Amino acid sequence: MKNRKILLAEKEIPTHWYNIVHDMPNKPLPPLHPGTLQPIGPEALAPLFPMELIKQEVSTEKWVEIPDEIRDVYALWRPTPMFRAYNLEKILDSPAKIYYKYEGVSPSGSHKPNTAVAQAYYNKQEGVKRITTETGAGQWGSALSFACNLFGIECEVYMVKISYQQKPYRKIMMNTWGAKVYASPTNLTEAGKKILSKNPNSPGSLGIAISEAVERAATDDETKYALGSVLNHVLMHQTVIGQEAVVQMEKAGDLPDVVVAPFGGGSNFAGISFPFLRLNLEEGKKIRCIASEPASCPKLTKGVFRYDFGDTVGMTPLLPMYTLGHTFVPAPIHAGGLRYHGAGVIVSQLLKDKLIEARAHDQLECFEAGVLFAKAEGIIPAPETNHAIATALQEVERCKREGKSETILIHLCGHGNFDLAAYENYLSGNLQKHEITQAEIDAAIALIDTPEIAA
Amino acid sequence: MKNRKILLAEKEIPTHWYNIVHDMPNKPLPPLHPGTLQPIGPEALAPLFPMELIKQEVSTEKWVEIPDEIRDVYALWRPTPMFRAYNLEKILDSPAKIYYKYEGVSPSGSHKPNTAVAQAYYNKQEGVKRITTETGAGQWGSALSFACNLFGIECEVYMVKISYQQKPYRKIMMNTWGAKVYASPTNLTEAGKKILSKNPNSPGSLGIAISEAVERAATDDETKYALGSVLNHVLMHQTVIGQEAVVQMEKAGDLPDVVVAPFGGGSNFAGISFPFLRLNLEEGKKIRCIASEPASCPKLTKGVFRYDFGDTVGMTPLLPMYTLGHTFVPAPIHAGGLRYHGAGVIVSQLLKDKLIEARAHDQLECFEAGVLFAKAEGIIPAPETNHAIATALQEVERCKREGKSETILIHLCGHGNFDLAAYENYLSGNLQKHEITQAEIDAAIALIDTPEIAA
Repeated sequence: MKNRKILLAEKEIPTHWYNIVHDMPNKPLPPLHPGTLQPIGPEALAPLFPMELIKQEVSTEKWVEIPDEIRDVYALWRPTPMFRAYNLEKILDSPAKIYYKYEGVSPSGSHKPNTAVAQAYYNKQEGVKRITTETGAGQWGSALSFACNLFGIECEVYMVKISYQQKPYRKIMMNTWGAKVYASPTNLTEAGKKILSKNPNSPGSLGIAISEAVERAATDDETKYALGSVLNHVLMHQTVIGQEAVVQMEKAGDLPDVVVAPFGGGSNFAGISFPFLRLNLEEGKKIRCIASEPASCPKLTKGVFRYDFGDTVGMTPLLPMYTLGHTFVPAPIHAGGLRYHGAGVIVSQLLKDKLIEARAHDQLECFEAGVLFAKAEGIIPAPETNHAIATALQEVERCKREGKSETILIHLCGHGNFDLAAYENYLSGNLQKHEITQAEIDAAIALIDTPEIAA
Repeated sequence: MKNRKILLAEKEIPTHWYNIVHDMPNKPLPPLHPGTLQPIGPEALAPLFPMELIKQEVSTEKWVEIPDEIRDVYALWRPTPMFRAYNLEKILDSPAKIYYKYEGVSPSGSHKPNTAVAQAYYNKQEGVKRITTETGAGQWGSALSFACNLFGIECEVYMVKISYQQKPYRKIMMNTWGAKVYASPTNLTEAGKKILSKNPNSPGSLGIAISEAVERAATDDETKYALGSVLNHVLMHQTVIGQEAVVQMEKAGDLPDVVVAPFGGGSNFAGISFPFLRLNLEEGKKIRCIASEPASCPKLTKGVFRYDFGDTVGMTPLLPMYTLGHTFVPAPIHAGGLRYHGAGVIVSQLLKDKLIEARAHDQLECFEAGVLFAKAEGIIPAPETNHAIATALQEVERCKREGKSETILIHLCGHGNFDLAAYENYLSGNLQKHEITQAEIDAAIALIDTPEIAA
């Protein structure tokens, strides 16, 4: 009998988060104030985030200790399992060994609770009564609802109205954990009222929901705001994934040649890949880390590296990032978690410095890969996750062509239990390709009016 | 930091299924032919099941070896984790230690694949090309679809039409694993045509779906039929759960005083409890095993022990069981998996002999328990599973009253990711109590015209 799983004991839950900023040859450029174009300091973030998270956001320390209270909650599902994908290898007749690290065992079904629990904890420590956030399809909102409930913090989620109506299960999940979920735009904020006065039937957008959640936090001393990706501290919290994966690969007597992960804002990619990049930076290993993005939202493969806003309406500081422009509206693909115009600052700098790679896939190719995976390994992956599987299949083909027996590690960051309508769409032949032309990309980039970055 | 999980290595997946029939002081009575009222032999089952499963159905051997090919598939998710419910204990201020064994980590999200994989394997061994089955809410249909796909067998699922329309996610899951799913009644069988000719808009029922699946298997040499609970071999396959749990409790340095599990046809209850009952029967331990059933379908607590049909329309052999009568129609509670009129033969005999206990709960009480559990431990349980949690909460209260510090083991047999509409119903205050009066029970039992069992 083969040994399919590589499991770790609870005492092997990492004790520290890994801060890759310490090891980066070129540090990330500072965020700028959009008015003065001067670097902003930590104090600018104080209305929105607790001080400990702001410290982490700007930290250059290599290791940040994880409080025992957080590790204790992590133990509800961590360490997560790693699998050798024997069935998939057989179906593909693969010369490459394939492993996958599975974050879908968390209560909300993805990697998101790794940072949600940490953020809820630090807010609780600083006496915060309530956390607000936005959510689209609901992965992040449900993770934060779960985390806030455990620490006795109120959670208010502004959920894009069209998602609220079309994806009720995620909303109910948040309610079950005690969160309040509002269909955004609401009448509870000035931003929401403004939108509704112009268009009472607005279906909402992530940009509007962010505005509502941020306004709520900025105007109430007892309320803070939380973000589920993009920011440095969020990426750092996710490194528990990759640290476990490094140990698991060692236990399997292996080391990946290639690590693949889906890419939205950067947090799940960072989570699995940064601890392997550390081996490259420290020990001169040559592990390739590939970020897999949708062909319809190709900021890494076709975007530009320059200062841009993190949100659609332009309320955040200017961040140095690969972007398609903050007003870019991605096609309505099913991988809602990857429909974001820009990439987190750290990941952008790593790509600029050619320390990581990126690849884009159409959603049809991704669902084909996802169904193949489900039939082989049982788990039905989230649409976002399918992007990494699509990249892995290409790498297997390359290994065949080159006659190489490499080791590929897939980040299976979430299950697709709440995304089966998307699979139905694919299986019934109704799923559309969402191609974007170079002309459309050029037009989007031409609209960007924020500062360029000197070479 | 507490140690929340008790994990086993893959090599600790049980090597044998435990057949409790060997150890029962009173063996189960034989099934009878409904016409002759004489005991039927194994040959009567040959049109529907492969010979190896029929042998298991009538076996009195204590241990049946699990083929390596089956253990290898089990390794995709087994051994399943056991958790110490520290958070729940704290919320309840419980003097009792609470553990839960979690089967929701399987690809289809419940314990059902434990037998689905075994059944698919033996069918494949005997050259069966296609397996048919029925499903209501879809737990069993999705488990069999997953298993058939892995062994390269076609799978045809007759899904009750009203569920097919109301619960599309389970249907899509089956499709993703390659199964054909039909909304029953169909035009593909004589049974279905007959129903449709009388009522073209029939919403279907489990009884009709069974008739269609059985007819398909009985009239095609390349097709067999599979059942997800009730039968002896199905219960035996599930004993991998309890065997693992016995080892996990030992590793925790503990032994349960009480084991609680939801009860539909008996397979998940048998799975967790039979290996603990073995300790009672062999070593004189006094572990109480409690089956938790819905108050609206109380066959164990208020039914009669007599011969009855296993299906609604009366096509099966007569089985000696606790029953409310095969024409009894349970109220439309959300725990669809527990809406069955009778109890499996082995479990019925054990209850008759007072070797196990039973308890009934209303669904409001069950959802209250489920939400409490979800807030404490993170996992949102299936509505069926909530029945066991409700029993566990009563046992904690008893421990408080009696000043005892006992150990309670809950069988958390599945997650509720596909049942969130039921939670919405509960959280919004729209969920109904489904009480059944003694007069209604008496009336149902008075309708039974099948043979009584001599005392």
